[in-house]
Amino acid sequence: MSNIKEIARIAGVSVTTVSRVLNDEPYVSEEKRKAVLNAIELTNYQRNQNAVNLSKGKTNLIGVVIPFSQHPYFGLLIDGIANEAIKNNYKLVLFQSNYEEKREIEALKMLQHKQIDSLIICSRICSIEMIEAYKQYGQIVLFEDARNTGVSSTFIDQYNCFMIALEYLYQKGHRKIGYSIGRRTGKNSKQRESAYIDFHSKYNESLNNDFVFDNCYYFEDGERIIQLLLNLKERPTALLVTSDQVAAGVQTCCNDHGIAIPQDLAIIGFDNQPIAKVMKLTTVEIPLREVGKKLFIQAINSEVTQEEIAFKLIERQTV
Amino acid sequence: MSNIKEIARIAGVSVTTVSRVLNDEPYVSEEKRKAVLNAIELTNYQRNQNAVNLSKGKTNLIGVVIPFSQHPYFGLLIDGIANEAIKNNYKLVLFQSNYEEKREIEALKMLQHKQIDSLIICSRICSIEMIEAYKQYGQIVLFEDARNTGVSSTFIDQYNCFMIALEYLYQKGHRKIGYSIGRRTGKNSKQRESAYIDFHSKYNESLNNDFVFDNCYYFEDGERIIQLLLNLKERPTALLVTSDQVAAGVQTCCNDHGIAIPQDLAIIGFDNQPIAKVMKLTTVEIPLREVGKKLFIQAINSEVTQEEIAFKLIERQTV
Repeated sequence: MSNIKEIARIAGVSVTTVSRVLNDEPYVSEEKRKAVLNAIELTNYQRNQNAVNLSKGKTNLIGVVIPFSQHPYFGLLIDGIANEAIKNNYKLVLFQSNYEEKREIEALKMLQHKQIDSLIICSRICSIEMIEAYKQYGQIVLFEDARNTGVSSTFIDQYNCFMIALEYLYQKGHRKIGYSIGRRTGKNSKQRESAYIDFHSKYNESLNNDFVFDNCYYFEDGERIIQLLLNLKERPTALLVTSDQVAAGVQTCCNDHGIAIPQDLAIIGFDNQPIAKVMKLTTVEIPLREVGKKLFIQAINSEVTQEEIAFKLIERQTV
Repeated sequence: MSNIKEIARIAGVSVTTVSRVLNDEPYVSEEKRKAVLNAIELTNYQRNQNAVNLSKGKTNLIGVVIPFSQHPYFGLLIDGIANEAIKNNYKLVLFQSNYEEKREIEALKMLQHKQIDSLIICSRICSIEMIEAYKQYGQIVLFEDARNTGVSSTFIDQYNCFMIALEYLYQKGHRKIGYSIGRRTGKNSKQRESAYIDFHSKYNESLNNDFVFDNCYYFEDGERIIQLLLNLKERPTALLVTSDQVAAGVQTCCNDHGIAIPQDLAIIGFDNQPIAKVMKLTTVEIPLREVGKKLFIQAINSEVTQEEIAFKLIERQTV
């Protein structure tokens, strides 16, 4: 790497002037600016941004952990985060975890080693204790209810969200209600499960484990749900499907198998993604772009804060 | 930041030993390693990875430019890139461009300033000349046919891809064929348009500009296509829909409007995304994860290479 002193020498200006030109600062005459730019051209000097970062102790990079890149749910979150990052002149470092703990630890280590300024974790597999151990190195923000921890979070009241959808189906006369979910183990899933159990207990209805379908993320998982459902002796009359994508897949397959919606099977989706409107799907709206925006704003602030995001049931034609 | 000399002093070891421990190198006794780790704990010294990068001249970061984060097409590309990055111990810096030129220039500037080692551009708006001007600073890889440039690329023969689908529809008796596309201006879109024009010229069929629907990216755009199509005096009998997502939206809306597929309207999708299988959609398979993998491998190699990826027509039930 050519030396800044060498540039100054070739340009016939002071080191301070070279530095001003490199940093786009004012108070440099056009003549001197040109001389410096020519000298840079001559020596092919590249300002190494890592050196700038080192001196400032800041990278303007924010890490984002997501389990999958190809899912519209995480796509919408990233979109919300990315647009806010653009406004604030930050770049994103993407960690696709595939729900492997070591990928999340890599992200935490990058925070520790000052390669990123903050870390947003959209969905996690590692323990909250592990995350708390790293918060001394920079801001960490979670998309889950982290009110009882020392970590910032933006969250939805998943328990209440599920309960309101279950109550709505109950008011419509449904007594055999099932649901589909991604993983069973995440914090959000646990809260939904609690609501499901409490709801059955409240109305003295028996729980049927066959009515819970896990590992459902994509449109095509709707086909699997309907295959499993067709093989049941006793079938649910309604399903909460925790992704509009999966719900649209369920609707499409019901159509193929002559299952009438909502007469034979009522469906409530989640998120209110654009596909829900086209499919006339009753769904629980979760404003994912807004969540992404809030997560980013928390990531660049130093205080630990908790932001609850409101949800809303949107009635269309599938219940 | 605590000094490495201070750590050595507290641990009672040499600076070389501290450096070995920090870099996970062998030949350090367990006793000395523990002493160093304790000293680090004591002084809360953080190895600043930016300093390491500065000395190595390498960041292990690869930039990736995509226009949108929330589209499954780019999601699948990112998934392919991300999984190959994991294998090779690289991280990705995501640039969501929203097709704004200045976002792409920011990415190119980060390459120039050594903040990333290479740059993958999945879809671009800035000129090829602009990109060529930056290739001196590091490897740049494009997902488009860049054989006549000095930049690496992985590409599909879009012209041939479109022509084969058009010929297939022609063999099935279709003479009025339309198509839908994202933007009209990208290089891939231009190649598709050329094939469409040449096809009509070959068979002496007249071109109808009403049969081309642009700005179509998402499932919900299928609804707009069908609304426009219903208002036409003369309608196409077949559509090439350059995204399975949009094609699935078209199928769903045709169903709502009593348009029989393939009798009233034949449809060929593109990509062979999982939704295509569920919808029994005839489609042109483009292996996007494989494309992502190849793009990444080119990004970490220093030679300029061109990789053509094969496509394949998959016959299902919509033609």
